[in-house]
Amino acid sequence: MRQIIIGVMGPGEKATETDVTNAYKLGELIAQQGWILLTGGRNSGVMDAVNKGAKSANGLTIGILPSENQIDISEAVDIAIFTDMGNARNNINVLSSDVVIACGMGTGTASEVALALKANKQVILLNDDDESKIFFKKLSPINIHVVESVSEAIATVQKILNSSSLQPY
Amino acid sequence: MRQIIIGVMGPGEKATETDVTNAYKLGELIAQQGWILLTGGRNSGVMDAVNKGAKSANGLTIGILPSENQIDISEAVDIAIFTDMGNARNNINVLSSDVVIACGMGTGTASEVALALKANKQVILLNDDDESKIFFKKLSPINIHVVESVSEAIATVQKILNSSSLQPY
Amino acid sequence: MRQIIIGVMGPGEKATETDVTNAYKLGELIAQQGWILLTGGRNSGVMDAVNKGAKSANGLTIGILPSENQIDISEAVDIAIFTDMGNARNNINVLSSDVVIACGMGTGTASEVALALKANKQVILLNDDDESKIFFKKLSPINIHVVESVSEAIATVQKILNSSSLQPY
Amino acid sequence: MRQIIIGVMGPGEKATETDVTNAYKLGELIAQQGWILLTGGRNSGVMDAVNKGAKSANGLTIGILPSENQIDISEAVDIAIFTDMGNARNNINVLSSDVVIACGMGTGTASEVALALKANKQVILLNDDDESKIFFKKLSPINIHVVESVSEAIATVQKILNSSSLQPY
Repeated sequence: MRQIIIGVMGPGEKATETDVTNAYKLGELIAQQGWILLTGGRNSGVMDAVNKGAKSANGLTIGILPSENQIDISEAVDIAIFTDMGNARNNINVLSSDVVIACGMGTGTASEVALALKANKQVILLNDDDESKIFFKKLSPINIHVVESVSEAIATVQKILNSSSLQPY
Repeated sequence: MRQIIIGVMGPGEKATETDVTNAYKLGELIAQQGWILLTGGRNSGVMDAVNKGAKSANGLTIGILPSENQIDISEAVDIAIFTDMGNARNNINVLSSDVVIACGMGTGTASEVALALKANKQVILLNDDDESKIFFKKLSPINIHVVESVSEAIATVQKILNSSSLQPY
Repeated sequence: MRQIIIGVMGPGEKATETDVTNAYKLGELIAQQGWILLTGGRNSGVMDAVNKGAKSANGLTIGILPSENQIDISEAVDIAIFTDMGNARNNINVLSSDVVIACGMGTGTASEVALALKANKQVILLNDDDESKIFFKKLSPINIHVVESVSEAIATVQKILNSSSLQPY
Repeated sequence: MRQIIIGVMGPGEKATETDVTNAYKLGELIAQQGWILLTGGRNSGVMDAVNKGAKSANGLTIGILPSENQIDISEAVDIAIFTDMGNARNNINVLSSDVVIACGMGTGTASEVALALKANKQVILLNDDDESKIFFKKLSPINIHVVESVSEAIATVQKILNSSSLQPY
């Protein structure tokens, strides 16, 4: 039976220290909830930190890699999906996530938020980039959830999963 | 020898009247410059209008379709590339364009602007959505060009093509 | 740490009774070895049967779906990756598998065998289509392994994993 | 209005001398018929030769590149579509072709023939690999056309285009 997957998207090399700290904690709490974590899978920034956080709590981690092999994979990824599709894989990231959390902001992350909204997914924004919050909230008032902390992000995921008619089948 | 391709991205069903008017005029001027037009290829909104504008000036038009066949294609598309990839094809749209013009704004268009910036492409924004201009300009100050009119968009493309070391080969 | 993934490819609606029986048994044995199963994820033919076999032995199952949602997913898939890419997802199937087993033959399966060989993967053929064995064996003598039974397929996977320098990292 | 596109698929580095000679002639005749040529776009083997043949007869050439930029593009490609998708782009090649000609054989070409059959396309085989002809003819007796010469390939395309209900729209 299909399991719940929570996607965490965020910058790689350009992640801030706060992004990385938040990502690690997000991973820990996602694993503690029994949810599976999905990321872009690279060994950098938010992707690497959230996977490490999830593994610290014995979670299961999926990485949807842009590459064709493990050259740039986070060592905290359990299940590697090699797409060899570069950033076109961003659409797979969001389609495969029951809820999307954007931790931090950058060009890749912005594309994932936009693609998630296009696919009518619920998206949680956790960052200190006010312009992104204003822009995306206007673009999709119902599907964007702005949060101020990791714990609020998790509570919001919980609320979305409960309220939605979203069922494994 | 590889020809210059100008990509015009914009909303389908949700395009405003201004977006559609601008798109038609953009297509006309792109064709008059001898550039090839590339769009998402659907028979709706900006995509349809810009292709029709280009054909009115005897331009050549390429459509990168999300579908596997011509079910939703603009009749003004000359060369149809069927991807069957949904919105993952947005990355192909921007990678294949020498310069990207975003005419209007929406979730799909926002994903294309973000993916274009991720690929280090020059992007021209022509719309009346201030929040998008502020957000993307902050995200990528050097690669975003905000313009106020169709003619300014074309002049900006011209300037980018001239100044860049961008050569067909 | 990245886990071993064994991909089983095979026909959907056009699978023979033998294909389906073999697929179920393959799934069972793959799970018993502690390997993760990867398939195209649909609720039909080889894909459905091998997932059910793996679940009967408490294995973990990944489905790389051609669709954007769970409309045609096997109920025995645990982790659903929604690509919305139709058969272009076949390349992801093989890139993400440490070893590929083709159980049965058809146009989709043939494309996966060919793409796997292109990516220099080891491929095991289990079917009664002699023409496919002759063709693929000639195409790639070193990477094609023709087997006669499910147990020989599993033994061959084991041998490939042992002999190869293939390591999780 | 959508133009007729003929796809020619074939090996790159591993093309035989005959493959390359046939490819050049195919390109020339395709252009003379007024059809647009579509290939995988690389500067090697069949892809490079057929594009050069088409340009020698002033044809229009489209290349669907596996890469994200022009690093490996044939100089005889007019319109470059950069997918950054590696061999997953093979599915786009066949979906975008009204008829597919396989000139020569190899793992990539085999994947394209199989994907074309999966998409219910008509496929013409021009090569001296008997095993491939036997295998694919059995796999899809109606859609596979085995030919012995370049001129027979062109006549077969003509026949398919005439007999089919295939219309630009």
